[in-house]
Amino acid sequence: MGKDKKKDGKSKKSDKSKKSAKYVYFFGGGKSDGNAAMKELLGGKGANLAEMVNIGLPVPAGFTISTELCTYYYDNDRTYPKSLYDEVKQSLAKVENEMGAKFGDKNNPLLVSVRSGARASMPGMMDTVLNLGLNDETIEGLIKHSNNPRFAYDSYRRFVAMYGDVVLGLKPEGKDDIDPFEEILEKKKHARKVTTDTELTVEDLKELVKEFKAAIKKKLKIDFPEDPQEQLWGAISAVFGSWQNNRANIYRKLNGIPDWWGTAVNVQAMVFGNLSEDSGTGVAFTRDPAAGTNKFYGEFLMNAQGEDVVAGTRTPLGMEKLIEIDKKSYDQLVSIRKILEDHYKDMQDIEFTIQKGKLYMLQCRSGKRTAFAAMQIAVDMVKEGYIKPKEALMRIDPDQLNQLLRPIFDVNEKNKALKGGKLLAKGLNAGPGAACGKVVFNAEDAVEWANKGEKVILVRIETSPEDIGGMNVAEGILTARGGMTSHAALVARQMGKVCVAGCGELKIDYKTRELRSEGKKDVVKEGDFISIDGSTGEVILGKIPTKPSEVIQVLIDKTLAEKDAPTFHIYKQIMEWADKYRTLNVRTNADQPDQSINAVAFGAEGIGLCRTEHMFFGEGKIGPMREMILAETVEKRKAALAKLLPLQRKDFEGIFKAMDGRPVTIRTIDPPLHEFLPHDEAGQKEVAKMIGIPVAKVKERVEALHEFNPMLGFRGCRLGILFPEITEMQARAILEAAINVKKAGQAVMPEIMIPLVGNVVELKLQEEIVRRVADDVIKKSGIELDYMVGTMIEVPRGAITAGKIAEVAEFFSFGTNDLTQTTMGLSRDDSGRFLPHYIASEIYNRDPFEAIDQEGVGFLMKHAVVEGRKTNKKLKIGICGEHGGEPSSVEFCHTLGLNYVSCSPFRVPIARLAAARAAIREELEKKTAKKKK
Amino acid sequence: MGKDKKKDGKSKKSDKSKKSAKYVYFFGGGKSDGNAAMKELLGGKGANLAEMVNIGLPVPAGFTISTELCTYYYDNDRTYPKSLYDEVKQSLAKVENEMGAKFGDKNNPLLVSVRSGARASMPGMMDTVLNLGLNDETIEGLIKHSNNPRFAYDSYRRFVAMYGDVVLGLKPEGKDDIDPFEEILEKKKHARKVTTDTELTVEDLKELVKEFKAAIKKKLKIDFPEDPQEQLWGAISAVFGSWQNNRANIYRKLNGIPDWWGTAVNVQAMVFGNLSEDSGTGVAFTRDPAAGTNKFYGEFLMNAQGEDVVAGTRTPLGMEKLIEIDKKSYDQLVSIRKILEDHYKDMQDIEFTIQKGKLYMLQCRSGKRTAFAAMQIAVDMVKEGYIKPKEALMRIDPDQLNQLLRPIFDVNEKNKALKGGKLLAKGLNAGPGAACGKVVFNAEDAVEWANKGEKVILVRIETSPEDIGGMNVAEGILTARGGMTSHAALVARQMGKVCVAGCGELKIDYKTRELRSEGKKDVVKEGDFISIDGSTGEVILGKIPTKPSEVIQVLIDKTLAEKDAPTFHIYKQIMEWADKYRTLNVRTNADQPDQSINAVAFGAEGIGLCRTEHMFFGEGKIGPMREMILAETVEKRKAALAKLLPLQRKDFEGIFKAMDGRPVTIRTIDPPLHEFLPHDEAGQKEVAKMIGIPVAKVKERVEALHEFNPMLGFRGCRLGILFPEITEMQARAILEAAINVKKAGQAVMPEIMIPLVGNVVELKLQEEIVRRVADDVIKKSGIELDYMVGTMIEVPRGAITAGKIAEVAEFFSFGTNDLTQTTMGLSRDDSGRFLPHYIASEIYNRDPFEAIDQEGVGFLMKHAVVEGRKTNKKLKIGICGEHGGEPSSVEFCHTLGLNYVSCSPFRVPIARLAAARAAIREELEKKTAKKKK
Repeated sequence: MGKDKKKDGKSKKSDKSKKSAKYVYFFGGGKSDGNAAMKELLGGKGANLAEMVNIGLPVPAGFTISTELCTYYYDNDRTYPKSLYDEVKQSLAKVENEMGAKFGDKNNPLLVSVRSGARASMPGMMDTVLNLGLNDETIEGLIKHSNNPRFAYDSYRRFVAMYGDVVLGLKPEGKDDIDPFEEILEKKKHARKVTTDTELTVEDLKELVKEFKAAIKKKLKIDFPEDPQEQLWGAISAVFGSWQNNRANIYRKLNGIPDWWGTAVNVQAMVFGNLSEDSGTGVAFTRDPAAGTNKFYGEFLMNAQGEDVVAGTRTPLGMEKLIEIDKKSYDQLVSIRKILEDHYKDMQDIEFTIQKGKLYMLQCRSGKRTAFAAMQIAVDMVKEGYIKPKEALMRIDPDQLNQLLRPIFDVNEKNKALKGGKLLAKGLNAGPGAACGKVVFNAEDAVEWANKGEKVILVRIETSPEDIGGMNVAEGILTARGGMTSHAALVARQMGKVCVAGCGELKIDYKTRELRSEGKKDVVKEGDFISIDGSTGEVILGKIPTKPSEVIQVLIDKTLAEKDAPTFHIYKQIMEWADKYRTLNVRTNADQPDQSINAVAFGAEGIGLCRTEHMFFGEGKIGPMREMILAETVEKRKAALAKLLPLQRKDFEGIFKAMDGRPVTIRTIDPPLHEFLPHDEAGQKEVAKMIGIPVAKVKERVEALHEFNPMLGFRGCRLGILFPEITEMQARAILEAAINVKKAGQAVMPEIMIPLVGNVVELKLQEEIVRRVADDVIKKSGIELDYMVGTMIEVPRGAITAGKIAEVAEFFSFGTNDLTQTTMGLSRDDSGRFLPHYIASEIYNRDPFEAIDQEGVGFLMKHAVVEGRKTNKKLKIGICGEHGGEPSSVEFCHTLGLNYVSCSPFRVPIARLAAARAAIREELEKKTAKKKK
Repeated sequence: MGKDKKKDGKSKKSDKSKKSAKYVYFFGGGKSDGNAAMKELLGGKGANLAEMVNIGLPVPAGFTISTELCTYYYDNDRTYPKSLYDEVKQSLAKVENEMGAKFGDKNNPLLVSVRSGARASMPGMMDTVLNLGLNDETIEGLIKHSNNPRFAYDSYRRFVAMYGDVVLGLKPEGKDDIDPFEEILEKKKHARKVTTDTELTVEDLKELVKEFKAAIKKKLKIDFPEDPQEQLWGAISAVFGSWQNNRANIYRKLNGIPDWWGTAVNVQAMVFGNLSEDSGTGVAFTRDPAAGTNKFYGEFLMNAQGEDVVAGTRTPLGMEKLIEIDKKSYDQLVSIRKILEDHYKDMQDIEFTIQKGKLYMLQCRSGKRTAFAAMQIAVDMVKEGYIKPKEALMRIDPDQLNQLLRPIFDVNEKNKALKGGKLLAKGLNAGPGAACGKVVFNAEDAVEWANKGEKVILVRIETSPEDIGGMNVAEGILTARGGMTSHAALVARQMGKVCVAGCGELKIDYKTRELRSEGKKDVVKEGDFISIDGSTGEVILGKIPTKPSEVIQVLIDKTLAEKDAPTFHIYKQIMEWADKYRTLNVRTNADQPDQSINAVAFGAEGIGLCRTEHMFFGEGKIGPMREMILAETVEKRKAALAKLLPLQRKDFEGIFKAMDGRPVTIRTIDPPLHEFLPHDEAGQKEVAKMIGIPVAKVKERVEALHEFNPMLGFRGCRLGILFPEITEMQARAILEAAINVKKAGQAVMPEIMIPLVGNVVELKLQEEIVRRVADDVIKKSGIELDYMVGTMIEVPRGAITAGKIAEVAEFFSFGTNDLTQTTMGLSRDDSGRFLPHYIASEIYNRDPFEAIDQEGVGFLMKHAVVEGRKTNKKLKIGICGEHGGEPSSVEFCHTLGLNYVSCSPFRVPIARLAAARAAIREELEKKTAKKKK
C-alpha cells in the first residue's frame, strides 16, 4: 500500500510536471489551446488571439510560447527545454496545415511574424520580427504565389533589415548615428534620384537585399541565416531576450510590472495588407476613445503594412471610407465590432488586415481612452445592458471625475501657444483646472484689481493665511515654493481654485514686480496676462480662453439648466451609483458658508474640518485677534476674546445654517499665534497704533513667538491648555451659534474637535472646559442640544495612546497631513528639496502628502482605530487630512473601517466614487475568498 | 451536599471578613499585634513602633488603627464600623494595664497622643493631638501623680490649644491673622510683663486654660469636651480627616502618593520629657546623615517636649553631652543604636524621650541623608557585613553619583553670597557643578580671554555649533533660551561643563555687552565675575571659589593620588559592584579623542555616538566644508570633499587610537547644511572671499537652505541620498583611518551609522555606498577589517518598519532625542513656552527630553526591538539619545533587552550604576514572581 501510494504520488507529480511542461499553445481553425482568461500564461496578445479564434473570428493561425518558458529561459542560462523544439515543430505543422502553406517551402512558403506579448501592455518596448521565413529560395515561391515580385522583394528587404537589427544586432553605434540599413536605403534612393521607397524598382529592392546582407557580413562577420528554422529560433530568442533590454526594464520599473512575469512569444502566419490594391490594413476602436460616443472609430490604408498606418508617410482614411472601397470587409468589421463588445463587454482596440479581399483580425484588447470617454462609455454600457453599475464604477478612476469639474482651456488655443514657445515654466499641478488672468504680486492688489473687474492670477513666492482674501478673488494661484500640500495648494483646492505651486524655476521680484523664469529671457510684468494649467503644472505666457465645466455651471453657478448639460448627466449617473454602493460617509473641509453650500451641492454629508483660524482673518476679526495675542494679562486677553465672541458666533451660525442639520466638526484654534501677527515693520506699526501699545512691544512679542520648528511648537491644544480662556470663548461661540440656529427652527449637530492631542490629559482638560461652557449655554437657553467632543489624531503619540484617549473622545479625526510629517520626520514645506528625488528613486512610490503612506502612517492609523474602538465601542472615526480626497487613501480608510472621509469641496465627488469602489472591491474580494474556500 | 458547600462558602467568607475586620493593632509589653513588614496596613510610624516593641525596645504602649479603617471611613461617609469601638476599648484597656494608669482616671490618669502615620512619610502634613485625656478632673490626678502642678497645667493649656485648633477648628481666619490661642497667650505675657512662657506662673497657666476654653465657646459656640472618650474619638476623626486636608492633598500629588493608601492613626501613652530636670527628649541618627560617617549623631534637650527641640527657642545639645547628664540613658541609646542597625541594616532616624530617668523610644525610621552620605553609608555597611553589595547599590540613586564628580562651590561662601542678595536669576540646571568666571558674550572672546589665562563664563542667548570652541574653553555656559537638551545643555554635559540654560529672566544685550535680569537693577558687564551653579540653576553675582571633585582629580586631571582621595574610593567601590551586576553595556557619546579618553576613564566600553559634524568646525575644516556646501556641481563638491577627506581621516584615527579596539559608532553627517554657513553679512563676505565667489551667491545659498521646520527637513541620510559623494567621503575617511590604526598595531571596531532612516531603501542605498568603499579600501590595503553598518531609529516610521530595516541594518541605535520630538510632535527647542506648564499640570510626569516617555516613545522602541530581532536575530541595539544617561531610561532600556546605552562621558558612571540596579531589580522581581508561584 505504502509503495503504491508513493507511486501514485510520483505519477501525479510527473503528470503535473508534464502538464506544466506544455509551453506552446496553438490558435487557429476555430479552436485554440488557450483563451482570454490565460493572460498570465499567454500574455495579453496571445490570450486575445486565442479568444478571437474561439469566438469564430478570422485570425491567421499561429501559436504562443508561454511566459513560463521566459522564466525557464532566464533561470537556465538562456537555454530551452528539449521538449520545446518538438512542441514548436508540431504547432508549426498545424499552422502550415491551417494556412495551406509550408514554412521554408520554395513553392508556397509560409511566412510568420514573431512578436512579444506580456501580461500587461508594454507598447514598443520589446522586439518584433515580420516576414520571417524568406530566403533566396523561398522568395521565388512568394513571387510565384503572390504574383507580385515588387511586393515580394519589398517584404524581403524589410525582413533582412529587421532581422539584422533585432536578432543579429546591427544597430546605430551612437545616439546620433543613423540606422545602417536606413543609410543604405537612402544611398540607393539618392543613386536612383527618387524620394520615396515606392519609386524604387524591383531590381533596386533586390539589390538592397544583397547590400543589406553584405553590410551584415562586413560589420558583424556573420552570414545572414538562410535556413528558416535558424531564422525562427533566432527571432524567438531575440524576443525573449528583449524582456531584459534597457527600455523594457525601465518601463517595467516605472509601471510597477514585476520582472518575474516574463513575456510570451507569438508566432503567427503572416497576412499581407500590401499584397495588392484589394489588400489593406487598419486599426480601430469599437467606440470613440476620445469622446466616448458609441461610434465605430478607426483608420486604414489600402495596399499597406501596419507600420505604414503608424508612420504617417501616407495619410490613413477614416473607417467610413471603407464602405466605398470594400463594403464586404466593412460590414464584416461592423459585425465583428458587435461580437467583440458582446463578448468582452468593453470598448476594444483592434488591428485588422485585408489580404486580397479577405479580412483577418490580428489583435484585440481593451482600448485606451480619455478620462471623459471612460465615463461616457461606462455609463452607456450600463444603459446598453453590457455591464452592471458596479462594473461601470470599477472602470472609472475617481481622479477622472476632475475632467467633469474643472474649467479647461480651449485645447487648440493652448497647443498653439505651446508650439509658439509660450511655455514659461512648469510647476506642480496643485489645483487642477485652467485659469488665465493678469499677474498681480500681492493679495491686496488682487482684491483691488478684482474689484475693478479684472481677472487676476496671484503670483507669490509662497502664500500665507494673510493672502486668503487675494486667493479668493483670483482666477488662479501661482507660487514658486511649496509642495502639493503647501498652504497655497491646500487652500486653492479647498476653494476650488486653479493652482500651480512650487514652480522652482520662477524668479519673483516683489520690488520690481517682475516674474522671470530661469534661463529664459521673457519678463512678465505686473498686469501682463499669463495662463496656468493646474492639471499639468504649465505656466504659459499670454491669454488662453477658458470656461467652467457644465457640472459647475449646473451645480454651483446655476447658469446652465440640467437638460442643456449632457456631461452633467454622466456626473449625476456616476454619483447616483456611487452613493448606492458606498458605506463610507463623505464630508468636506470648509470654513465659510459659501464653501459649505458648494460642498453640499457636491454631495458632502457634513463638515469634517472647519478650521476656525481662517475666520480670524475676516473683516473686523484680525484686530481683536491680535489684541488677544498681544495681551499681557488674562484680563486683557479676556477683553479681546469678548470682542471676538460675537464675530465667531456669527460665522458659526452661517455654517450651521448652510449645513442644515448635517454634522459640523469645528476645530479649536490650531496654528502658532505668530501667524496672526504682521512680520514687517509697517504692519507692526499699524498694529501698535491700533491697539495703543509701543511698536517695540509688538516687535518683542513677534520675536518671542518665533520658533525654530513651529510645526512641533506652541500650537494646537497647547494654546488652549495655556490659555483656557481661548477654548472657552470658542466653545461658547460654537454652542451659542448652535442654540441660536436651533431656536430659529433648523437642526444642528456640532462636533467640537481638539487638535494635536498626544495625551489623554490634554483632551480631558479641554473637554472639561467645553462641557462646562455647554452646560451653561444650554441651561441659559432652556433648549436641549446634542453635541460631541472629540480630537484629532495627528501626532504619533496620539495614535499610540488612542485607547486611553478614546475613553474621553467621542470621535477621532485623523489629521494625516501632520501625522505624515511627524511619523516620517518630514516637513511638507521643506521636502521639496529631496522628496521628488526620493520618489524618482522609488524610496517612496508616491508623495506621502498626496497618498497615505500605508506602511508607516497607516500602521499608526490602524493601531488607533483598533485600540480606540476597544475602549469606546461607539467611537466615530474619520479623516480630515488632505488625503481624504485621494482615491487610494479613501480606499484605505474604508478598509480600516472609518466612518467617514472629509476633503475639500471639489474633491467630494471623487471621494464618493472612491468610497463606492472600495466597497465594491471589498465585496468582490469576499466573494473570491469564499469561492477559494 | 450542595447546600453544605454553600454554607462552607459563606462561613469562609464571613471568616475572611472577620479577619479583615480587625482594625486595631496593639503594641507594648514586649509583643505587638503588628511588625515592620506591615507598613501598608499600619503606616510607617505604627509598623516601626510595633517592631521596636517586638525587638525589646522600651516603647510606651499604644495601638494603631489601620489604614483600612481610613478607607472605610471615607467609603462610608466618614463613619466607623461598630466593631471599632469595642476594639479601641479593648486595646485601650491593654495600654492602661501596661502603663499602670487609667484613661480618664482622676487619680492616675493615662494621657495619650493621637498621631497620623501613612505608608510614606508626609512630614507635618497631617494632624497630631498630644496630652489627650486631660480635663478639669484628671488634671488633679496628673498634679498628684507628677507632683508638678506647673508641668500639669502647662500640659493642659497646650492640650486645649492643640485640640481647639486641630479637632474643633479654631484657627486663624486669614493668612495674616494670628493664631487665636497664641493671641491670648501673648496678651497674658504682656499683662504679666514677662517675655517667655516659662516665666508664667501656675496660676497664669490655669487662667490660660480657662481663657482658651472661653474663646472656643465664644467663637465656635461649643463647650470644650471634658469627657476623655469624646476627646479621643474627636481626635481620631480629626487625624483621619486630615488625610484629605489641602496640604496633604497637594503633598501627595507632588510626591506621587495615591489617595487610596490612607493613613493609620496611632494612639499611644504619653511620656513626658518636660516632667522634671531628669526628663528630656531628643532626635538622633544612627550615623551622620550629612557626611555618612559611622558616628552617633543627634540632639536633645532636658526638661522639654519634642516641639521644643524643633522650635529652636532653646539650643539643643549634641548627643555626647548626654554622657555627662544621664550616662545610663546615653549608654542605653548607644546599645539601642546598635540593635536598630543590626535589625534594620540601615541608618535610622529615631526620637526618644526620657521621663524621670527612664528612656522611651517614640519613633524610628530609615533616616534621610545627603547623596554623599547615602553612598558612604552603603559602602560602609557592606564592609561592616550589614548588607550585600547588591543591596548597597539599590540604596544609591544613580544621580547621586554626580555629587562625586562635579566641581562644587564652597558652601559657606555661596550661602554668604545668597544671603547678601547676590542671586541674579535662576535657570535650568542643565550641566551640574559649579563654575565661576568673567562674563564674555561670544565664543571668539571666550577663546581669546581663555588664551590670556582668564576663566570665563560664556553667556549667550542660545548657542550654536559655531560656539563650540568657546564652550570648550569656558568654565561654564549660561544661556537665556533652550531647554534641558538644547544645544548648550547637550554639548555642556558631553564636555562635562557646568551649564545653566534657558534662564528666561535674563536680558542679554550683545551690542552693549551687558547682562540684566528682569526686575533687577544689577547690570553685569563684560569682564564682571559671575558664578553659576549647574546643579541648582542659580546665577550669582560675583566670585565664589570652586574646585574639581576628588574623582576628577584622580581619574581625569591626574593631579591627586588615589590614596589621598577618600571619596574616590567610594566611587571606585560602587563602580566595581555596578560592573559586576550589570548586563547592559555602557558607551559614550564623544567626538574628540580627549573626550574619548575621559569617557574610558569613566568606564565607557565604546563610543555609541560620534557626531561627525562637530569635527567640521575644527581647524582647517570649516573652509572646505563650506566650499562643499556652496558647490554648484558634483565636480566642485567632490573637489571640496577631497580636501576634507584627509582631515576627517585624521580625526577618526585619533578616536580609534583613544578607544583602543573598543567599538566606535560613527554617524554620517546629520544636521541641515545651513548650520555650517554663516548667517551674518560679515561672515558671508568672508566666506565669499575665501572661496572666491560673489557674496550674493553665498547669501542666496543660505536663503535657499532656509527651512520652516529644519528638524523635519533636509538632513540626516537625506543629505547622503542626494549627495552620495558625501557619504562616500565619510565612509572612506572612517575605513582608511581604521586600516591605518590597525596597520600601526592597534585593534579597531568601526560601526558606521546612517541617521534619520525611515525606510529600508534609504538605508540600503547608503549601505551600498559604504560597502563599496569598504571593499575598495580593504582591497587596496590588503588588511582584513571587521566593520558594521547600521542605523539610527529616530523617526516613528523607522521604528514602525524596523522589521524591514533590520534586514539591512547590523545594528540599531535609538536616537531618542529626535524620536521624542517626532513621536510627541514636540520641538525641544520650542517647548520651553509650554512644557513646564505641562509638567506642573501633570500632563506629563517628567520632561520627556530628560526621561524617556515610556508610554509613547517607549511603545515605538519596544516595537522596533521586537520586530527588528524577528528578522535579524543578531541585531545589536543601543540608545544614543541624551536619555542614555538618565537612570529611569537606562532601566527601561535594560527591560527592553537593549545591548547598550550610550551617554555623555560624565554620565557614564551614572549609567553603569543604573544598569546594575536594573539588573538587580529584575532579578528580585523574578524571585518574587517565583515565590508567588
